[in-house]
Parts: sequence; structure tokens; C-alpha cells
Amino acid sequence: MTITDLRSDTVTRPTPAMLQAMFAAQVGDDVYQEDPTINALEQKAADLFGLEAGLFCPSGTMTNQIAIKAHTEPMTEVICDITAHIYQYEGGGIMFNSGASVALVHGERGKMTPAQVEAHIRPDNIHYPPTRLVALENTCNKGGGSYYTLPEIAAISEVCKRHGIALHLDGARVFNALVASGENPQEYGKYFNSISICLSKGLGAPVGSLLLGNRDFIKKSRRIRKVLGGGIRQGGYLAAAGIYALDHHVERLAEDHAKAKQLETVLSQSDYVEYVLPVQTNIVIFKLNDRYKDADFVAALAENNIRASSFGPQMVRFVTHLDVSDDMLQHVLDVLQQLKKQQVEV
Amino acid sequence: MTITDLRSDTVTRPTPAMLQAMFAAQVGDDVYQEDPTINALEQKAADLFGLEAGLFCPSGTMTNQIAIKAHTEPMTEVICDITAHIYQYEGGGIMFNSGASVALVHGERGKMTPAQVEAHIRPDNIHYPPTRLVALENTCNKGGGSYYTLPEIAAISEVCKRHGIALHLDGARVFNALVASGENPQEYGKYFNSISICLSKGLGAPVGSLLLGNRDFIKKSRRIRKVLGGGIRQGGYLAAAGIYALDHHVERLAEDHAKAKQLETVLSQSDYVEYVLPVQTNIVIFKLNDRYKDADFVAALAENNIRASSFGPQMVRFVTHLDVSDDMLQHVLDVLQQLKKQQVEV
Amino acid sequence: MTITDLRSDTVTRPTPAMLQAMFAAQVGDDVYQEDPTINALEQKAADLFGLEAGLFCPSGTMTNQIAIKAHTEPMTEVICDITAHIYQYEGGGIMFNSGASVALVHGERGKMTPAQVEAHIRPDNIHYPPTRLVALENTCNKGGGSYYTLPEIAAISEVCKRHGIALHLDGARVFNALVASGENPQEYGKYFNSISICLSKGLGAPVGSLLLGNRDFIKKSRRIRKVLGGGIRQGGYLAAAGIYALDHHVERLAEDHAKAKQLETVLSQSDYVEYVLPVQTNIVIFKLNDRYKDADFVAALAENNIRASSFGPQMVRFVTHLDVSDDMLQHVLDVLQQLKKQQVEV
Amino acid sequence: MTITDLRSDTVTRPTPAMLQAMFAAQVGDDVYQEDPTINALEQKAADLFGLEAGLFCPSGTMTNQIAIKAHTEPMTEVICDITAHIYQYEGGGIMFNSGASVALVHGERGKMTPAQVEAHIRPDNIHYPPTRLVALENTCNKGGGSYYTLPEIAAISEVCKRHGIALHLDGARVFNALVASGENPQEYGKYFNSISICLSKGLGAPVGSLLLGNRDFIKKSRRIRKVLGGGIRQGGYLAAAGIYALDHHVERLAEDHAKAKQLETVLSQSDYVEYVLPVQTNIVIFKLNDRYKDADFVAALAENNIRASSFGPQMVRFVTHLDVSDDMLQHVLDVLQQLKKQQVEV
Repeated sequence: MTITDLRSDTVTRPTPAMLQAMFAAQVGDDVYQEDPTINALEQKAADLFGLEAGLFCPSGTMTNQIAIKAHTEPMTEVICDITAHIYQYEGGGIMFNSGASVALVHGERGKMTPAQVEAHIRPDNIHYPPTRLVALENTCNKGGGSYYTLPEIAAISEVCKRHGIALHLDGARVFNALVASGENPQEYGKYFNSISICLSKGLGAPVGSLLLGNRDFIKKSRRIRKVLGGGIRQGGYLAAAGIYALDHHVERLAEDHAKAKQLETVLSQSDYVEYVLPVQTNIVIFKLNDRYKDADFVAALAENNIRASSFGPQMVRFVTHLDVSDDMLQHVLDVLQQLKKQQVEV
Repeated sequence: MTITDLRSDTVTRPTPAMLQAMFAAQVGDDVYQEDPTINALEQKAADLFGLEAGLFCPSGTMTNQIAIKAHTEPMTEVICDITAHIYQYEGGGIMFNSGASVALVHGERGKMTPAQVEAHIRPDNIHYPPTRLVALENTCNKGGGSYYTLPEIAAISEVCKRHGIALHLDGARVFNALVASGENPQEYGKYFNSISICLSKGLGAPVGSLLLGNRDFIKKSRRIRKVLGGGIRQGGYLAAAGIYALDHHVERLAEDHAKAKQLETVLSQSDYVEYVLPVQTNIVIFKLNDRYKDADFVAALAENNIRASSFGPQMVRFVTHLDVSDDMLQHVLDVLQQLKKQQVEV
Repeated sequence: MTITDLRSDTVTRPTPAMLQAMFAAQVGDDVYQEDPTINALEQKAADLFGLEAGLFCPSGTMTNQIAIKAHTEPMTEVICDITAHIYQYEGGGIMFNSGASVALVHGERGKMTPAQVEAHIRPDNIHYPPTRLVALENTCNKGGGSYYTLPEIAAISEVCKRHGIALHLDGARVFNALVASGENPQEYGKYFNSISICLSKGLGAPVGSLLLGNRDFIKKSRRIRKVLGGGIRQGGYLAAAGIYALDHHVERLAEDHAKAKQLETVLSQSDYVEYVLPVQTNIVIFKLNDRYKDADFVAALAENNIRASSFGPQMVRFVTHLDVSDDMLQHVLDVLQQLKKQQVEV
Repeated sequence: MTITDLRSDTVTRPTPAMLQAMFAAQVGDDVYQEDPTINALEQKAADLFGLEAGLFCPSGTMTNQIAIKAHTEPMTEVICDITAHIYQYEGGGIMFNSGASVALVHGERGKMTPAQVEAHIRPDNIHYPPTRLVALENTCNKGGGSYYTLPEIAAISEVCKRHGIALHLDGARVFNALVASGENPQEYGKYFNSISICLSKGLGAPVGSLLLGNRDFIKKSRRIRKVLGGGIRQGGYLAAAGIYALDHHVERLAEDHAKAKQLETVLSQSDYVEYVLPVQTNIVIFKLNDRYKDADFVAALAENNIRASSFGPQMVRFVTHLDVSDDMLQHVLDVLQQLKKQQVEV
């Protein structure tokens, strides 16, 4: 029985061609910086985003946590939206790894305005932790795949530069934002002091994220990665998948977005749905009305071989990706229609 | 020229009788736990609040920070109101000293409901820091001296107990709450795992706070105090002031509350005031309308030998205390009336 | 030109058969614990060492750091030999990640006696951080590949149990110890609360280490791994190499040991060598006398296509491994003989 | 019954004249930096040691811990002697408060040579925490009151400056060193980036230490003190004792030294003593031979109303101070003689 897995775009498995690329990789010991494939991927990603250097890490949590550590000191503060992955889903890492405080902005669908950012910068007073970093997430996961445009980013960057505060991008799904907006990643390098990108979400690589920045920042980050235990040896096999993904899996994200739109359309017309966050990329977040509890709804999908995530009380999330075929999508659409007819009384 | 200092109730100086008590104190080396006056104060305060033991510390920031450290581990989380002193005014200490995250509740005038507390407890999931501590502030400084009643505290305590989470009280101004409500401090010990009380605010002692809890908790806290550098030697002089304050300066807080009420009345009738947070204890927080900027208003008071605190954009705070005499209050009331007439165009 | 790389046993590349095993791996999303190959490797390694559960991590630094964090709290202390990798080569991670202090034993070739361990356990006194963990390294890298026997381990374990202190093994090269001693890894589980083993040293896998312990410990460790950023997605490709290595690359370590012995023999007879630490496994550490500086000696080897590590003033380290063929060894032996004749005056 | 307390010079109580000075102090709220007596003491101490500014803190542990935090970042390293108070007796604070590692020098009686310091500076390598701070203790407590001379300090300072590493002095008993050597404290400011001095040891004040450094360093330190909870309000009473102590209790330390010498003489001639560390200031550390266990010896003294400290297996410490009168000393000398005659068989 085929399972359609809409829990996350992290669940993808390498395509045969990607797997081919992986096992043809040249490798070396990356602790000595001698893995040619990792070196190539780090430079390729840095170039793509208009930054100087890159660092390959096992996860996006690690790239984010290293960036936060490198930009802050203990007793300083990070500004982010309250929905941010770095605050919500990294186990309290900001505080644990960096000893830094958070100022939490209540943005719209995870997006902060420049005015909100500026209002959260601490005045110089011994009672407050000095603000050292602003972190954006693009696309915003908990915002339902919403994204910042370049002018919005530029305006926040201007606030940061004026106050001497660094700007980090959690770009776990930045390629979805770039494909949706048609913008050029090169422009990002002008605005961000550091960028984290993920290879194992929409891009479909099995493992890995990259932290990008200038050379000094990456040198500092490499030392932090060592202490966190993120230095690996012959990781070129994983890096080769990343190179393949950057070459072949970016443009196709548009297909995932189209599929998400189809899901939105059907859900919007379903009487068990209170609302759907308007779909902008590959994430569909919707609220069930009182005809279903979220756990029951997820269970009903599971009976139909569809996996989805509870995403808070009455909330459900679908994520489309490389491993959701047209047939699978049609199956999901059919099931969503069916559930409409046979819904359970709660 | 007499200065009337309404910036905080921390600015009081010992009365002659308190000073007399201080210099008659028996002292010893408290690192060896041999200072009889510190020992007496610690037990007296613990008994007062129905807890087993106490620990004398140089400041309320230290008692709060020790309590947070003792109740949590790194990678866990503390729930508090967004206005809480422990989050806003202790320099990011929760994160720095304890490596713990914060879940910030948006209560009313700094007061959280049991439902709000419960909604912020994290489910058991590897992505989240487990919730270990709820911290209340009573009275709430940024809430304008608002306070929790015992039934409100009991209801939050019930939530904490049900989830196996500790409950801490930042009682920097708890005596103001107790005098205003007429409640018995003994009851507090049933609900809180730890209580921090401050001697150098409304009580008028020069230095010191106490952390109260059960014996094991205080033993653990004593070790933490050592590492933070809060262990002192012949501190009995300060403790004697604390004992005097507990014996003589609690009931008189009602006078400070009455004075604060008079300030509220005049401010409410002033056309440069947008609103005053209804006064409940000794703190008066009000918002200026556009006829004054907060800095200009504070400056205008200063010209009249009155000191007050800017408390955010357009916000001003007055705090009444032991060193604000009836004459001083009258002078302030007169000046507030005058400013009404001669207000500056901004 | 073939390079013989004696810098470390981390530099090996997968054999064709190992690569084949990797290529054929079943994978899934390990953050959801759904990667069947990672799950199988974790259980296989745990079973091998007589422990309940395992956790796959990107590096041995991470497995060690997680173990230290899981066994300690901030303000406690770890006892280890002064040469220990966890103290010397993990970037200060004990202090950074765990906020724990170290008591450093001066053992013989990295090996502590039970009496030394016991003498370093702190008495119960508020001035001292309580001792929570003893960590052994087996084999000892800086000790020149020396190893603890099971009776030696049992005696230290007895001290730890008597004092209620956990015992961790940094087993980066534990298979070398097991092959050299002929001991059974199952016995280890009786003595250690946690064991870190490395797949990418002598075993020849490209990436990865495993942390082993009981189920609760591994559950706690999984959370810590998340916060450090060590959670990966489809890591089964790497795990497959680990399974292959455990099945095929353990017994052959005896060949590396024999090669190391041959290097020792030649070095001992070279008049530029002050002493060689008697070889016990696959590491050869020797001190040059004043005819060579260590950097010059390493450079002279490099001119002959041999790579080695400076290992402190006048010290050099060779490590034998899977990728040092018989021919390569002969070449190294020849060059060492030659250098004897043509040595540079310093 | 009069107790002669030789446990530590921290046990002194203020003299009547010092108490008088305390009683007459002008005070204010030091969180607003408005306590005139604290301000005066901070400047007086800074001037004395040729540095720009000072910060009054509740304890020497706090001044040391703040200095270490201000000079380091997490993942860096501090060099100190293995006997150093900051490593041995501050509860693991270096690691907890600063997340920094330690490199421990085995000096002679707690004193490191410039060569030892230099040998412990880490090379630039991703595996090591970069060295950021060297800390001296003068006099050395565990070294038995031994002290560095200015030329010795200058030589270590030269090493630090050459490597761009800060130099901190734990001067808990620096006045004993200055009185013994006849050196000028002004000279210290040339060599140290920060100095911690203690008022409540030989100087006889009840509470407090001062951290001294340049203005930027003290500004940074003030913020750290806030987060640790060391900011106090009307602390001028304590500061007044400190001013009195600096004015009246420095030169008299010579008397304590003379008394310590007398103790050394008698102990050296006692057949229950294996050795006495040659006395240089006010600390007498001696080792008992097998006729007494340290606990039994301390108990025997206690029966004679003399208190002393066990200081490790078979080790005992005496400290002379302001509250040890000539009569008390004679009593101790008599008892030491007596014990010689009636010693217990162990």
C-alpha cells in the first residue's frame, strides 16, 4: 500500500539520479577541510547567495544555532517572530547554546514589519540584554509558507544596519520563497549577515544544511560546529546530493506549490474546515471546525494511507514535496472530498 | 532643597530606629552559617510565609535567579507574564544563568490566568524545551502595582501541581499585596515552591532579599549563591535592618497606597494624561497624551525637585514609599495641578 | 603519486564493498525515528556492548559531549585524565556545553588508577562542584594507543558505584582495545553507564559515532542531540556503512596493530628518536631528539609523500589504518631508515 | 570562654572605630550609582592600584567571576595554577558562569613561572579553546601565603601582552603581599588588566570586595554584576567600613605576619608535624605526621577553644588576623606545645 506522506518535506528519499551522484562523490576528511565535494558545495551555495563562504552541517537546527552563537554573546538578545523555528522548535537552543534572551514579535503569519523589529530593540540600560541579532524565517513554516519579498527584507536590513545589529536568515525553505517570488538569491547576500539553507527539505537531499556568511564568520562558525560535535569526516556523499539538488531540484518546487494550491481549494470548500491560511508556497495550514478534532482528522487520513501533522489545537498541516506524485495528490483530494461527506460527529 | 523621589521604593534610607537596630546587631561569618542575625532573619521570614527555610541574598535579582536555576535545568522552559521583572529587568538572566527558555504570557496588567498558564505548558516532544517552572510577580511592577488574590494564586498552583511544574513567586513587593488584600502570608507557603521577598523596597531596609523554600531547596540554593558570588561574611548589620523592617514597616505600607491613590485622582483629572492604570498599591503608571513627551514631563517635574521614571514611550511611573512625607506628597500634587495649566506645546 | 597518510585513522575512505552496502540502504526520516538502517545500527551496537539502546550521531565529539551533558548538571565536575580527548580536543566543550568543571588526573599514558580517581572525588562542601562523572578513554590517543583491561575498568567502576558517580567510556578506538586484549565487548556494559564508539576511525566508515546506554539515558540524549543540531534525516546511508564496518572491519584491526609494531621497531633503532611509547595498538607516538624539529621531520616525510602529525614539541604521531597497505608501510619503513642516514642538522 | 578562631581571616568583626565609621556613612541607591560612599570607595581603591575605576561587590568570588566573564567568552580558556581559588573554591564558577575551560599549571606553592604560563597557551587550532586570560592569586592561599614579587608579575605580564591575553589578579590577600614585600600597589596597575581586592579578609571589614580595571571594563562588569544579582541599594554602610579599613588596617597586617611566624617556629619544633610551608605572610599550612589525623588534631585544638581548618589529608591551616590578640596567640602556642607532649596514638 502506498503511503502519501504530507507530514513534512523532510521525508523525501533521494531520486535514483541523486543517489547516483552521491555514490560517485569524491570524498576526504572534512575535519582537515580535505573533502573536495563538501568544499565545492560550500562554495557553490555561498556564490549562489552572494556571500563569501559556507559551512556544511548535519541539520538546519545546527546552522541556525551556530549562527545565533556566532552573532551573540551570553546576556544579549535576539529578536524573532514568536512563530520562529529557532524559538519554537529548536528545544530552547537559543538560550542553551548561546545564553541569549529572546524578544518575541507578534507578526502576521510569521512576518515582522521593520517597525515591529525596531520597537523591540532594547535601549542602552543595565537592566536589559543588549539586542545583537534579528532573525527572519523565509518561508515561514508556522505562518503557513508565507514569505518575505526582497523589499520587505531590505527594509528590515536597513533597521538592523542603523542600529548595528546583525541579520540572520533561517532559510530552511528559502528556495520555495525564491521560486514563488521569482527573486534572485544573489540579492540576499546584500541584506543578511548570515543565511542558513536546508538541503533536506524541498530540495530532496537526504541530510544537511549550509551556513553562509563572510569568511571570518564562517571561520568562527567552524570552531563552534566543532564544539557542538557537528564536524564530520568523509561527508562528501551527502554533499554530492546537495550539489545535485541545487542543480536539479530548485525550479521544480513550483510543482509542489501548485499541488498545495489544489489542496487549499478543496479544503476551502470543505465544511469541516474553519479556515485555510492562503497558500503561498508548499505548506497548507488549516483549522478544523468543531466537527473534527485534529487528532481524529489525522487518524481518518491515516486510515486512507495519508499522513499529516497535528499542528496545535484544531490545526492541521500538509506539506507538498518531491515524493508526492500527481496520483498521490489526486488520492488526497478524493479523500478530503469523501471526509466532507462522512464526517464524524464529535 | 528637598527632593521628592518617586522613581522607586528602592531609594529609601534607613530610619534612625532601623539604623540603631543595625548597629546593635550580633554578627558572624555567614559563609560558615555563623551569623546569628542572618540566621534569625532567614528563619523569621520562612516562618512568616509558611515555608521551612530562607536564604539571605544581596538583591531580589539574585533570589529570583537562584530560584529559577534551582527549579530548572538547561534546555527547559519557564512560563511568566511578558511584563515580568525576571524576563524584562534582570538582564537576560533566565537564559544566561539557567540556560532556560521562556514562554511569555500576555496577561492583564501582568497577571496570568490559570488557562493562560496551562496553554503555555509544552507537550512532550523532542522539539520543545520541557516546562519546569511558572513564575508569578506579586505585586506586578509593570502592571502598575496590580496583585493576585489568594484564590487566583491557588488556581494557578493547581495547574502547576497537576502538571508537576514548580511555582515561584517574585514577591519583591508582596507585602504591598498582602496589606492591600488583607491576606495572610502563611497561606502563600501552600501554593509556592519558592518565594523571593525584598527588604529594600517598600520595607525600607538598605540592602537585601530573601529566598524561601523547603530545606532541600534552600540547601541547593546556598550552593548556587556561592557560585554566583552572593555569599557574604558579617552581613548581620543588613539582616538586622530586615528584621526591624518586618517588625515595623509592613502595616504602614497602607499609607503609601493611600498616597498613590491621591496621585491617581489628580492625574486622572489632568488633561495631559491619556489614562492612569487604576491604583491598587503603591505604584502609579500613567500614559501622557500628545501634550507632553515622557522625557519632557519628567524634566518638568525635576525642575520642581520631583524625580520620576520614564517607563516606555509616553509612559511615566510614580512609586510611593517610606521617604515620601505628607508634605512632599502635597508638593507633588500641587505641581501636577500647575503643570496642567502651563503645559508645553510639543 | 600515492600518498601514505599516517595522520589519523579518520582519513580512510569506504571500500567498494562498504560503498555497495551504503548504496543499498533503506532510509527514512530519523527525526521521526523512521530510518530502518539507523534503527538497526543503534540496536546492533547496543547489543554488542551489552547495553539497551543507541543513538547515531555525526561525530565522536558529539556523542561524548551529549553523554557529559546527560550525566552532569552545571556546577558539577567531571574526572578524566589530563590527556583525555574530551578535555584536550573538544574545544572546551565540557565547560561550554555542560557548564561543568574538570578534575584532571595525571595518569600513566592516559590511564588513571582507581586510587587516582577516588582521590579526585570532591568532598561535600559548598566550595566544590560535586563530582558527577568519571570518563575513561580506551584506547588512549595521547597515551599512544595504550588501553585499559577489563579488570582495570572493573576496579574504577567499583569506585564510581561506591560514590554514586556515573562512568562514561570515550571508546573512539575501543575496538582496537578489544582486538588487542581479546576481551568481550559485552562485558563493558556491566561497568559503563554510557559508551561512545566511533565508526569513522579504525572501522573505516565515512561518518558517524554511536552513543550507547540504557533506554532512559538514550531518550534524554536524543533531546540533547536535537538541541545541539545533531538530528539528521535520511542518514541510513551512513548507518549502512557502520553496520558493514561492525561486521567486517573489527578483526582486521590486528593488521593495523602489526604495522604499528613494525614502525616502532624501526623508530626505536633510529638515532633521531629519543623514545617511542611502546606500541600497544595502532598508534605510534615518538619523541625526536635534537637532530630534528618536529615540523622539519614532518616536512621531510611529506617530501616523501608521507603525511604525519606533529603532536607537541618534538613529538610526532603515526596512526595505522585500513588505507595503509603493505606496500605503503614498506615505503614508510624505507623512508624512516633513509632519514636516519641523511638527517638535517638543526 | 574566649574562642581563638584561626580558621580564616574572614571571621573578623568590625572594631568599634570601624563600626562608628559605618554608622556615620552617607548612603544612596547604588543601582542608580547614587551612593556617595560606594562611589568614593570605588575610586579610592582604583587610584590606590593605578587603575581607572572600581566596582563594589558582595564577595571576592563575585569580583573574580565577573572578571573572568568579562575577559573571556564561552569556548575560550583561562590559565591558572591548580591551587587557585578561582578553580578550587568557587564551585566550578569559571565553567558555569563563563563557559570557559581551564589550563592548570602546577606551580611552586601556587606560583606559576612565565615559562609555565607560556607553555599552557593554546596554539591556534580548531580543537582547542583559545587562551584568553591568565589569573594570578597573590598571596596564594593554598600555597601557604606565598607571594609574587613585582618583577615576577612583570615577567608574566610580558608573556600575556606578547600573546594578547588579559591578566587578572585575585588579590583577596594582596595587601598581605604588599606589606610583606614593601611594594607599591600603584605598580600593579601597569601589569594587570583587572584586580580583585577583598575588604573582609585581613582588612577586617564585614562584607565586600572590589573589582578594579579601566572604565570600559568596569562598565561591562557592572552589567554582569546586575545579571548575577550583585547590585545592591544603600550599601554605603559596608563601603564605609572598606574605606576605614584601607585607611587604618593595611600596615597592621605586619603584626599578623609576625604572629604567623611564631606559630611556624613552634610547629617546626613539634614532633607531630611533618613539615610547615615556610611562612611568608599570615597563613600557616602544615602537614601532620602519622601521630595525628587532621580531624583529630583539629578536634584537640577545639577542646582548647581554638578553631582551625582541615586542609586536605593530614594538612591543617592556621590564619592570623585582626581578631587574634597577643594573649590568644600565646594560648595557641602553649596548646601546640602541650599537644606535643600528650599526643594521641592513632
